[in-house]
Amino acid sequence: MVTKKTSTTSPRHGITAPQGFRAAGIHCGIKKPGLLDLALVVSEQSGPIAGVFTLNQVVAAPVVVDRLHLRKGVGRAILVNSGNANACTGANGLAAAKKTAALVARHVGVPSHQVFIGSTGVIGRVLPLNRIMKGIPNVFSQLNERGGPDAARAIMTTDLRPKSIALQDTIGGRLITIGGMAKGSGMIHPNMATMLGYLTTDASITRSALQRALTLAANKSFNCISVDGDTSTNDTVLCLANGMAENRTIKEGTPAFRRFLQLLTEACQSLALAICRDGEGVTKVVKIEVTGAATVAQARQVAQTIATSNLVKTALFGEDANWGRVMAAIGRAGVPIIPSKLNVWFDEVQMVQSGMGLGLVAERRIAKVFRQKEFTIAVGLGTGRHRSHMWTTDLSFDYVRINASYRS
Amino acid sequence: MVTKKTSTTSPRHGITAPQGFRAAGIHCGIKKPGLLDLALVVSEQSGPIAGVFTLNQVVAAPVVVDRLHLRKGVGRAILVNSGNANACTGANGLAAAKKTAALVARHVGVPSHQVFIGSTGVIGRVLPLNRIMKGIPNVFSQLNERGGPDAARAIMTTDLRPKSIALQDTIGGRLITIGGMAKGSGMIHPNMATMLGYLTTDASITRSALQRALTLAANKSFNCISVDGDTSTNDTVLCLANGMAENRTIKEGTPAFRRFLQLLTEACQSLALAICRDGEGVTKVVKIEVTGAATVAQARQVAQTIATSNLVKTALFGEDANWGRVMAAIGRAGVPIIPSKLNVWFDEVQMVQSGMGLGLVAERRIAKVFRQKEFTIAVGLGTGRHRSHMWTTDLSFDYVRINASYRS
Repeated sequence: MVTKKTSTTSPRHGITAPQGFRAAGIHCGIKKPGLLDLALVVSEQSGPIAGVFTLNQVVAAPVVVDRLHLRKGVGRAILVNSGNANACTGANGLAAAKKTAALVARHVGVPSHQVFIGSTGVIGRVLPLNRIMKGIPNVFSQLNERGGPDAARAIMTTDLRPKSIALQDTIGGRLITIGGMAKGSGMIHPNMATMLGYLTTDASITRSALQRALTLAANKSFNCISVDGDTSTNDTVLCLANGMAENRTIKEGTPAFRRFLQLLTEACQSLALAICRDGEGVTKVVKIEVTGAATVAQARQVAQTIATSNLVKTALFGEDANWGRVMAAIGRAGVPIIPSKLNVWFDEVQMVQSGMGLGLVAERRIAKVFRQKEFTIAVGLGTGRHRSHMWTTDLSFDYVRINASYRS
Repeated sequence: MVTKKTSTTSPRHGITAPQGFRAAGIHCGIKKPGLLDLALVVSEQSGPIAGVFTLNQVVAAPVVVDRLHLRKGVGRAILVNSGNANACTGANGLAAAKKTAALVARHVGVPSHQVFIGSTGVIGRVLPLNRIMKGIPNVFSQLNERGGPDAARAIMTTDLRPKSIALQDTIGGRLITIGGMAKGSGMIHPNMATMLGYLTTDASITRSALQRALTLAANKSFNCISVDGDTSTNDTVLCLANGMAENRTIKEGTPAFRRFLQLLTEACQSLALAICRDGEGVTKVVKIEVTGAATVAQARQVAQTIATSNLVKTALFGEDANWGRVMAAIGRAGVPIIPSKLNVWFDEVQMVQSGMGLGLVAERRIAKVFRQKEFTIAVGLGTGRHRSHMWTTDLSFDYVRINASYRS
């Protein structure tokens, strides 16, 4: 019997939903008074940890540290500050990042490499190290089993709402819980502002199985709302497993692995869509589905080009059924197209058949589709059998407002 | 003795500035009453014509026709309608485009292939052929030597201002004039809305020299404000030369060719910058200069990535000296970067040295640079000796407003 539910009705939320995880979020003085800016997650026992990181070549100090620590593959605690990205801060920034990890490690009583850190906020400002070092004892004193929501709030920057999730399934005879929190808002297209995602689980799982599951789950979730290679200096997704559910250890290639992968993918997709939906500016969340492509890469390339077109995104905001902009995006995606084989649907309404518009009646019908908050743009390329998808959001006045005044 | 001046003080403007060119712009019924929507340019005698077109694989009917006609390389007249792009309109759209060219050709008394056509506006709507066919005799009746401004106005879509230019130089002992008009507004980034550019000259020049000059000039102008391959279904630049200045015919590789190329490049750059500056939404025009790259392509790739970053563009609008967004764009441009060799300047103020921010004093100084209407962001990659540049504009509330309601 499978039980699966979100944590919204559970007293233990988000990353503190799985057994043996405590968390807290406090104000340490990086952001304006009253705003939480330092989050801590600690597991009762150490366990395997997996990570996926930004593809940006300009990499923030915490990403350098996490990549290094991930080589050992064992995690116990995660410390994240918001308000300062600790990026483009040179050797001093790296030293500061290491100091914070070392102090957390000392509090927990583990080697530094079991502590992972994250930063998000303005790039290029010196990290206020003293405030964080003073904040660390405070955030430890606040740690508790219901601390998930505060932690989720403490990693926010332009986010309007904290984003967390918890899902459960019975795997290997035991109830397994996956919890998660994320930050990032709908304006991640096409130039992703920092996205951070942290997942916790009480499952017992090998390190290699955990890494494989996280990589696959991220590809079908966080990487479908961002753009390949189009990542910020700080993007990080981590998953820490403490084994306290005492299930038979999950290994790759087993039915249990597939169950775990499904649960993790669902958790990641929920967080990814929450990122899309967040942001005062976002009025639409639209799925772009591309089928009939010669390769998966080509399908993805077309989906991405549509998803990141400012002309498509403003048409979504204006509820202007300007399907010609979708056609123009397909044509410039850089993959071989046979215009006379193109078909385009908006939800169930076909607008383009064999490369030609189907006229005003179809336009009137898709105009109704454009008035929905969420819908699908489906493109058939007619050049093969492969497919891919992506989520995008509209480009609104508030996107401009929020991003034009981010630092003020 | 070289005389060179813009036509602003001349009674003969834009494309009608060179000898032997007449033009007109009328309302034929595609756009709302009172708005000009049909432009015609006719030369007294036929001459060589050169063209550069969209790289989009979904190509509008007029581009198909122009490419075909360009094989003969001789031009006499150009007909352009606004309000309807005649794109994604299939075989009927192509037949309609050919009919308009044939009717113009009959009026002038030349073969159809000497007539070039352009369309700009909504994609996928059936071209109102009857209105254009009825408009053609009318626009012929309006043809005159001062018709440049009306023609420039008749090709506008979201443009706020008509854009035209005329420049003169003495080449081969004769005064040569180049005239031009363009449409397209500042919001061409990063997903270029249709850009049309038409140039006329009374120079005598070989067809191959004219094509070579136009290709080179477009690469340093129109292609620096758009994005390679990132073009609409209709983008077209044509240059028609009627030889009426009676200079010694300009051939490639001569000093006269270099003079002509310089004049044509200047005309194209003026039109390209006018496109950048146009648009109610544009408050900034910023040049992105990338130097020290391993190849020109890498320099261009970095310039383009910065120029098309929505986060950079909103920061420009907000006058937020958020140089970290420039760093993030450099890092995700997809070219090999050595972060510790990066230098970034805003006008003369260096903000990043060897990959590190230079602190709050420098930030305060670049904040002043950001308050200017036009400035330069210069990036030194430190990986080679090649360079490239690009112009970009900010992303403003009005960009969203104009593009969200384009068709309503």
